Amino acid sequence: MAPSGTASRAAVDPRVVRTRKDVLRAATDLLVDTGWESVTHQQVARVAGYSKATLYTHWPARTDLLVDAFASLGEVPHHTPTGNLRRDLVDELLTFRTAMVEHRLDRALAVLVDLTASVPELVEVRNRLATEGERVVRRLLEPSLRGVRLEAATCMLCGAVVHAALFHGRTPDEDFIEAAVDLALRAVDPAQDTPDKR
Amino acid sequence: MAPSGTASRAAVDPRVVRTRKDVLRAATDLLVDTGWESVTHQQVARVAGYSKATLYTHWPARTDLLVDAFASLGEVPHHTPTGNLRRDLVDELLTFRTAMVEHRLDRALAVLVDLTASVPELVEVRNRLATEGERVVRRLLEPSLRGVRLEAATCMLCGAVVHAALFHGRTPDEDFIEAAVDLALRAVDPAQDTPDKR
Repeated sequence: MAPSGTASRAAVDPRVVRTRKDVLRAATDLLVDTGWESVTHQQVARVAGYSKATLYTHWPARTDLLVDAFASLGEVPHHTPTGNLRRDLVDELLTFRTAMVEHRLDRALAVLVDLTASVPELVEVRNRLATEGERVVRRLLEPSLRGVRLEAATCMLCGAVVHAALFHGRTPDEDFIEAAVDLALRAVDPAQDTPDKR
Repeated sequence: MAPSGTASRAAVDPRVVRTRKDVLRAATDLLVDTGWESVTHQQVARVAGYSKATLYTHWPARTDLLVDAFASLGEVPHHTPTGNLRRDLVDELLTFRTAMVEHRLDRALAVLVDLTASVPELVEVRNRLATEGERVVRRLLEPSLRGVRLEAATCMLCGAVVHAALFHGRTPDEDFIEAAVDLALRAVDPAQDTPDKR
């Protein structure tokens, strides 16, 4: 994902790249550990080990800091498709599930959707994060589905993982993800094997 | 849903019932309008038109107030099944979708999943809200699916609506909901009509 915010033009300087990375890492850590209230220039500077002046140079307003911190969440690993549709969908959702745990993406997403209601600048970041998060699943389903059915199937698969993580408070296990993928694939191609109907 | 929190035993007195209803309505309005930070005894008392002393009698701690406010969200309308599975699933998800708009359930859910990370007392409320929210969809699918497949299909249908509302920032329209239900039903019964494969 291209860097956004005020620092994007300077991002070729390796020192600036490192500063951005350190500061945004500190900001997202604060976000998930203690909530967005603690993402202030002062607290982020303290945690990242930079001066407040440096932070103000790169992110003049607190909103800039929040927007860039959430934008940096978009840099989450995806599975690289291998050509086996079922395995690719399962592995992509497992990668997504693991990112929820390791990057504490579940907590960050909860903060983001909450904050978006009061910080309009975050709407675009949230939309981009959703598009980027769903990208591989949508691409894998594209040869089989179109239009609103592609949209619904993508939301059903990604939504099942997000919903279980946010509302059941547990990251879904492999059995759950395989069951979801098998239901989706059976819908896409009803001619395929349906073991428990036989 | 049974009332929870400290006021449950006194809930038979009609004055107490009215007080609870007025106060929790004010608390949930504040939650969705300005965020959970504003759900304090003082602000809720002001909005509800009761004294702070009354609020402290019913809800000694701020956490009690938050827990009961979110618990009151569980009283959301459901569709009453008529026996036509496809129509029942579509109507239940449309009812859920409409509750998102009219009760601003999308905003409340976002605040809830965010707050749950820091207020452990809310975990049980969130779990109960999820179970209650999914109840009718799960019951409609129960004759066709079992175990992890029932769990996955329920999360796919409810998750698609929640995911679209929270991460795409729009309540899903009827076309989207019908497409999701048709995909789910085709997975449940692959022998059914599949018009766009022919």
